[in-house]
Amino acid sequence: MKDVNVGICGLGTVGGGTFNVLKRNAAIIAGRAGCNIRVVRVASRRSRDDLALGDVPFSTDIFDVVNDPAVDIVVELIGGYDAAKELVLAAIANGKHVVTANKALIAVHGNEIFEAAEKAGVVVAYEAGVAGGIPVIKAVREGLAANRIDTIAGIINGTGNYILTEMRAGRPFEEVLKEAQALGYAEADPTFDVEGIDAAHKLTILAASGFGAPLQFDKAFTEGISALTPNDIAHAELLGYRVKHLGIARRREDGIELRVHPTLVPKSHLIAQVDGVLNAVLVDGDAVGQTMYYGPGAGDEATASAVIADVVDVARAVASNSQQRVPYLGFSPDALEDLPVLPMEDVQSAYYLRIQAFDHPGVLAKVASILSEHGINIESIMQKESEFKDGRIPVIILTHTVQERQMNLAIEEMEALADVDGKVVRIRAENFN
Amino acid sequence: MKDVNVGICGLGTVGGGTFNVLKRNAAIIAGRAGCNIRVVRVASRRSRDDLALGDVPFSTDIFDVVNDPAVDIVVELIGGYDAAKELVLAAIANGKHVVTANKALIAVHGNEIFEAAEKAGVVVAYEAGVAGGIPVIKAVREGLAANRIDTIAGIINGTGNYILTEMRAGRPFEEVLKEAQALGYAEADPTFDVEGIDAAHKLTILAASGFGAPLQFDKAFTEGISALTPNDIAHAELLGYRVKHLGIARRREDGIELRVHPTLVPKSHLIAQVDGVLNAVLVDGDAVGQTMYYGPGAGDEATASAVIADVVDVARAVASNSQQRVPYLGFSPDALEDLPVLPMEDVQSAYYLRIQAFDHPGVLAKVASILSEHGINIESIMQKESEFKDGRIPVIILTHTVQERQMNLAIEEMEALADVDGKVVRIRAENFN
Repeated sequence: MKDVNVGICGLGTVGGGTFNVLKRNAAIIAGRAGCNIRVVRVASRRSRDDLALGDVPFSTDIFDVVNDPAVDIVVELIGGYDAAKELVLAAIANGKHVVTANKALIAVHGNEIFEAAEKAGVVVAYEAGVAGGIPVIKAVREGLAANRIDTIAGIINGTGNYILTEMRAGRPFEEVLKEAQALGYAEADPTFDVEGIDAAHKLTILAASGFGAPLQFDKAFTEGISALTPNDIAHAELLGYRVKHLGIARRREDGIELRVHPTLVPKSHLIAQVDGVLNAVLVDGDAVGQTMYYGPGAGDEATASAVIADVVDVARAVASNSQQRVPYLGFSPDALEDLPVLPMEDVQSAYYLRIQAFDHPGVLAKVASILSEHGINIESIMQKESEFKDGRIPVIILTHTVQERQMNLAIEEMEALADVDGKVVRIRAENFN
Repeated sequence: MKDVNVGICGLGTVGGGTFNVLKRNAAIIAGRAGCNIRVVRVASRRSRDDLALGDVPFSTDIFDVVNDPAVDIVVELIGGYDAAKELVLAAIANGKHVVTANKALIAVHGNEIFEAAEKAGVVVAYEAGVAGGIPVIKAVREGLAANRIDTIAGIINGTGNYILTEMRAGRPFEEVLKEAQALGYAEADPTFDVEGIDAAHKLTILAASGFGAPLQFDKAFTEGISALTPNDIAHAELLGYRVKHLGIARRREDGIELRVHPTLVPKSHLIAQVDGVLNAVLVDGDAVGQTMYYGPGAGDEATASAVIADVVDVARAVASNSQQRVPYLGFSPDALEDLPVLPMEDVQSAYYLRIQAFDHPGVLAKVASILSEHGINIESIMQKESEFKDGRIPVIILTHTVQERQMNLAIEEMEALADVDGKVVRIRAENFN
């Protein structure tokens, strides 16, 4: 049996998990890969005494890995943008295959990296960058290869999903965030998670590999969950909906919708039932219909599972000396389409609206008339008498699907009404049917 | 761009779907595969006027496909055992790769077919045989390659799941079955679906490819859903459980549990929420934890989606002339372990029991004492006073996990009690935590 040699850069959570699983399951993995996958070099700024590295050479210079002639596959687990990009491009230049868990790197620099890798004839694989241990990139690029994929929608940030799950009990965002930080689910600076940036990285990758278009992270729309109130979540529940922080990518004739925002989904839909730190990705293809992929989106060994799946794929190509490749973004580079990401005003969505109305007769009529003038149909309307306070009463409206541009105009006009106090709260809604 | 040539045997539901999707999505599929996938020959006992075959040669002799020198990949969609086996072995003997949706063929004759294919150096792929359009074989064989897979459990027969979903409304099995037949969800002879044979085929394949052991369909235990009553389903709901017809494969130190039977699962578990004709497969790996794969388990284009995914994988190998292969059962043939399938008496499970007790004082004590003597702990007990009838009252017991052998003995003793009328109803239960 041939040996295929791996070098690991970065010994953080995922690096340690990858080393441990490769060691513990070495026989199982060799049985599947048809070759021995050996870790021949490890590099990390900080060493880890808890890992039994044995006689595997360790160095603090990550470039020792990419410059080691024995290494066939470089596993990049250092995270971040610049150093990781430099490392990966150096590995490619040295003719090495790359496996990475770095979603930020791929979302932002992927087009450049894939171009260099294509020229060098090496693989760059990134399953672990999206939804942790769930093999969803493999599903999208290979398992659903027959399909024109129309919609991808996912709970792809466990921190956000944990916070929203806890907020259903009526607890405010700030309180749950603090708890999530104490539990280690959220970073000290939670911006990446709660403002949707991390999810937008992953969504960008899912959309590109599902739709066959270049990565366009800078065009993604992001709206976080920090402004959500337990009240709005409770209203949504009353209407039969659950609020989830979704990444949604939709392929249309005229381009791609690429957006991360809080979203009402019907409680009866399976994705609404995914709670806590877990992830799930819904994929809608023209032949298969809806499929969903569910599991842990983070964690040392869960993410290592995805890293190693990529390593096994690459190791098979190395061991059989073959040029057989799954294209980086699922489609051959010359088959990628320059689909533009549509501006948010062109997105089509249903909406949940909360209007703080002064309790005058006629306010409902005025609001309904504004919506009607913009071609917006009302699905349901609810006046929360029980939440009457200081002469104001919340009016909750669920609309049918409409262009965001029309909704923006309608909201502007509603906010200008003397009967309406302050800003109109707007949460997008999707039925996925 | 190279051409890779496909011949389709069988133009039933899936055959027609496969032809149509290959045609409609030809450009998308070529972009992903890196080659043109052309249907060069089609054979079927009956022709189909609704398919636009154009200038693709059609014949009524399926062996015309395997004998056509132009065909690289034979797609076997005729179903059944004997003719399909002969066809597939002939294709292999002619050096052709095979893609099949035939779960019965693989579950029963797979070991022999894979051995022949290994010798000939060709691929035999069967994603479409398990859970229709859900790419779960790819997940198990490739996406989770890092893991020692411990448990696979699935709703893998849509007909059965539809019937159980409808029975929750209190409708009896026979009535719902008739409806399912009228809707085309169930065959005129529903045995394969409702008695668990179809599910056992799929489970056999999942277990072999997940655990790395030969296919052992003849050792699978099957129990159908035809004896279930709406009452037992309602009791389970009261206890917080849903009744699903699951295929469960568990890898233990001493062998494999391989069993299809009605199963109580906690309502809070995502798999309990999968209703109607849909399928879902839960996979538990030592590194990744629990993942789940959900979607349509049948249907013309959903199944075609899986067939074509396999065709694309094989086409990449053909086009690049490579020997790179994913092993038939996920593991290299010499890495397969001869794990025995454990007899049902050795299986470990929790149990739901319904005992029709004569309403005498002391019956509960006698039942509890029998369970205790066999080391069976009671999780909860419920006496349904409201269902008192003809002097008998149902006693519902949920137990902790115990060996089936002990439960058989305990049930035998309970049925021998003068206080107990008739047979004890037993439904297995799993928590999947």
